[in-house]
Amino acid sequence: MISNVVRIALLGCGTVGASLLELLEKQAAQIAKRQALELEVAAIAVSDLAKQRPEVVPTELLSDNAAEVVSRDDIDVVVELMGGTNPTLDLVLSALKAGKPVVTANKELLARHGEQVFKAAAGTGVEVHFEAAVAGGIPLIRPLQVSLAGEKIHTIMGIVNGTTNFILTQMAEHAVSYEVALAEAQKLGYAERDPTADVEGHDAAAKAAILAAIASDSPVGLADVHCEGISHLRLDDLEAAQKLGFVVKLLAVIDLREGEMMIRVHPALLPAAHPLASVRDAFNAVFVEGEAVGELMFYGPGAGGSPTASAVLGDLIEAAREVRDGRSQGAGSTEVDSGEDFAPSSRRPSPRRPSQSRPAPQAAGRKLRILPIEELTTCYYLSVDVIDRPGVLSMVSGVFGRHKVSIRWMEQDGLGQDARLIFLTHLAVEKNMQAAVAELRTLEVVRQVNTLMKVMGGQ
Amino acid sequence: MISNVVRIALLGCGTVGASLLELLEKQAAQIAKRQALELEVAAIAVSDLAKQRPEVVPTELLSDNAAEVVSRDDIDVVVELMGGTNPTLDLVLSALKAGKPVVTANKELLARHGEQVFKAAAGTGVEVHFEAAVAGGIPLIRPLQVSLAGEKIHTIMGIVNGTTNFILTQMAEHAVSYEVALAEAQKLGYAERDPTADVEGHDAAAKAAILAAIASDSPVGLADVHCEGISHLRLDDLEAAQKLGFVVKLLAVIDLREGEMMIRVHPALLPAAHPLASVRDAFNAVFVEGEAVGELMFYGPGAGGSPTASAVLGDLIEAAREVRDGRSQGAGSTEVDSGEDFAPSSRRPSPRRPSQSRPAPQAAGRKLRILPIEELTTCYYLSVDVIDRPGVLSMVSGVFGRHKVSIRWMEQDGLGQDARLIFLTHLAVEKNMQAAVAELRTLEVVRQVNTLMKVMGGQ
Repeated sequence: MISNVVRIALLGCGTVGASLLELLEKQAAQIAKRQALELEVAAIAVSDLAKQRPEVVPTELLSDNAAEVVSRDDIDVVVELMGGTNPTLDLVLSALKAGKPVVTANKELLARHGEQVFKAAAGTGVEVHFEAAVAGGIPLIRPLQVSLAGEKIHTIMGIVNGTTNFILTQMAEHAVSYEVALAEAQKLGYAERDPTADVEGHDAAAKAAILAAIASDSPVGLADVHCEGISHLRLDDLEAAQKLGFVVKLLAVIDLREGEMMIRVHPALLPAAHPLASVRDAFNAVFVEGEAVGELMFYGPGAGGSPTASAVLGDLIEAAREVRDGRSQGAGSTEVDSGEDFAPSSRRPSPRRPSQSRPAPQAAGRKLRILPIEELTTCYYLSVDVIDRPGVLSMVSGVFGRHKVSIRWMEQDGLGQDARLIFLTHLAVEKNMQAAVAELRTLEVVRQVNTLMKVMGGQ
Repeated sequence: MISNVVRIALLGCGTVGASLLELLEKQAAQIAKRQALELEVAAIAVSDLAKQRPEVVPTELLSDNAAEVVSRDDIDVVVELMGGTNPTLDLVLSALKAGKPVVTANKELLARHGEQVFKAAAGTGVEVHFEAAVAGGIPLIRPLQVSLAGEKIHTIMGIVNGTTNFILTQMAEHAVSYEVALAEAQKLGYAERDPTADVEGHDAAAKAAILAAIASDSPVGLADVHCEGISHLRLDDLEAAQKLGFVVKLLAVIDLREGEMMIRVHPALLPAAHPLASVRDAFNAVFVEGEAVGELMFYGPGAGGSPTASAVLGDLIEAAREVRDGRSQGAGSTEVDSGEDFAPSSRRPSPRRPSQSRPAPQAAGRKLRILPIEELTTCYYLSVDVIDRPGVLSMVSGVFGRHKVSIRWMEQDGLGQDARLIFLTHLAVEKNMQAAVAELRTLEVVRQVNTLMKVMGGQ
């Protein structure tokens, strides 16, 4: 009789960890019944023992020595919710090298050190599960890896950062400035005290790198992602976009072609009727376009303790099945079950025959050529303040013309002595658009180039 | 060295089958590289050999004896795309009993005979994969079974029939009658010549039964699904709904509570801002509400050869991994690889130790109490034609009052001598609402009760 008890070490016990403990307790009966698994939290490693609230974390399981916890013989699966890369990377590597599957929600770890992590996993034939690392509670990673395994993916386009989506929603719906919206996000706990990682797009870039690696089955680093944030956006840009029938969203976009791809994070105008346009507040949504399947969208909560814990639990159940099935393999290949030791924890599977693992960040494939942002072809939104006098529009238009940028739509608004020009362009090449903007800045009649944004999602 | 060649029998080769053959050829290199699998179509069983176009189907693989094909020793995986239940059920059962994983897109088979099918699969420890049976190309089944394995699901609400969604979109956007919209759907190949299965909700009901069984991990039969179609809907109902800020959609709804559930398919009014409201044409989308994760939505093409083939291919890759890993288990437990026969097809895994399978239609759990539709509490839309004379509204209101139905909103439109009354109610019990409607029909001043529809999605 193979034991169904799987013993778990939890590394880190913040919001997600506490939600996971609660969820494990609530769902224990369902998991036992449906999955024939008994998930037992055997140890919880935290950095500061004194900080733990005993009503959340059973104190007898606590340890401040994560390395010791990971190496314990009775631990079957390691759930890493510490974040960061130091000492997390070492802990995750040592778990994998010991043949223990790892569940992690750590996008930074995977975006920076994915290659090392997945190589270690392949070495002992265990899996790294990371559904919660991208788009929080939304089942996205596993559908991409498994359900769409036979699909040729052309484009992924998503709202993968809840903080910036909340800020943009606040600005658009309550007509407040970026600063006011950010303060509100901080007050509600959606944004950190130092919001840089979110508002400058770094968080979204790490997620984009992970998605790009899965979709292309090739290694992708953070340096491969072009990244612009939202902190320079002005309320009047959002209002101008709205008047034109668009909304502004921070998008992570991955374009895949034969042997090459472009990965970028930037704010963009989306038509109001686009399904991503109606994704409000801290919600996330990811569009996937595949050759055979067409357009798919996955929508749900992008963050939060409870949704993230739900994704971690889904992963944990997969990892636990893996451990249990490993035991049953082990039992099958042993001539006689001697009965000398039936303790579940001693039934560690010997490293499994390396099986081809799922497409993963920093996958083993050949690195694709990364197209620089300068080669992007898209439509643009541009807001420029000029001196209001005859001939100005002709000068500005002349600059566009010289750089092969064709204007599709223009509006001029008086601002006292000045005027604001809002342009939408036809398809243009980023390099040319940037050159046009640089030249506009040199014109004496141009007071200020306000905002340049890409327009996405078909027009 | 374990072989990576997995040999496939295709049962049925219509639109989806032809798309699958094309996709297998196109994606062979990617599948070999990423999954280390060589998927070889070894046989194609069709009912009429003469009907096959040789440019689509390699004639040397064709057979009109499906039973013989399934039983062949060199077949590793059976892909069932014949539809129907006879002789499909027998073929699927014999494949499973021979330890061959089955991939199917056959909702009818699973809704009617799921219990038998999954019992047979459990007996030999192989899996039945059926991602394509519900919501076409959308990854939905596996996320529900795997990613949300630890989730307590409260509600599933979805647009799971593309034909009816196309018809309703046509009616609403082009102001045409049901009959005209249906004719258009038939012309475009979205609707069958006999559209009954789609327009009366039977197709959606089979999908609802499958989803309900997975979400509850308990057996669900077609008889457990309350089912209303859309053929009685009138253009003026859709227009009235639109004026009130709603759209009309055919929904499959599953409400789960402790130990009981309600499963229903019916047209309903949804607020225009609800994410399901913007799902147009033949697209599908499924909302899932879980206790920990909150609201998720899965959106994509609900039908069509190519999207469905994409879902089948994802399943097929999973099944093929299963076969390959079974070989590697088999190889591990054999003392010596004698080398006497390395042909991949002879490496059939002996029936595996039965592993707990995923939650599946007609799962092994205890049957939940099915709540009858009469116990539903929801808001309603009602359109009634009455004789236009003083006191009528008071009579009609009196009927509502007697049946504990409270009116939230009412509009009266003159129609010559008659008037049309449109009501929206507060929350009311279906049984009471039905009784009120029955009594309205007996009133001399009531010309006709036009349409009663439920209002969903919060108001």
